[in-house]
Amino acid sequence: MAMDPLKTLGYEIRKRRLDLGLSQEVLAALCELHRTYIGSVERGERNISLLNIISIATALKCKPSLLLKCIDEAV
Amino acid sequence: MAMDPLKTLGYEIRKRRLDLGLSQEVLAALCELHRTYIGSVERGERNISLLNIISIATALKCKPSLLLKCIDEAV
Repeated sequence: MAMDPLKTLGYEIRKRRLDLGLSQEVLAALCELHRTYIGSVERGERNISLLNIISIATALKCKPSLLLKCIDEAV
Repeated sequence: MAMDPLKTLGYEIRKRRLDLGLSQEVLAALCELHRTYIGSVERGERNISLLNIISIATALKCKPSLLLKCIDEAV
């Protein structure tokens, strides 16, 4: 069964954020997004837009396509 | 100067659609989206969501991360 791509991406974002030692607050500030929004993205509750994917990828020091690699097997 | 990632992705979607010989109507039907929505995405007018990126990538027979590769240099 296919995994939920929103949850899969959220988990990947959380993992990369923790790997960089960033809090949700700091990641949110780097992206100019709200901390609660980052939390909901990490829980897979948001159908995140391309521009926010790009902002988060940039703050996590990775390319957008690399960030989305995790969902290739989830679709 | 960075290119507009929405326009860059829209151009890539149009290119892949034409490579497959699909009209906007047929791509829209495959994605269960509206033809005018596909047109606006191809023109870079939409901040497209992850679920629609996945639908379009699947209809274009490519992985989401591959579809987004075009914007890695645009951000």
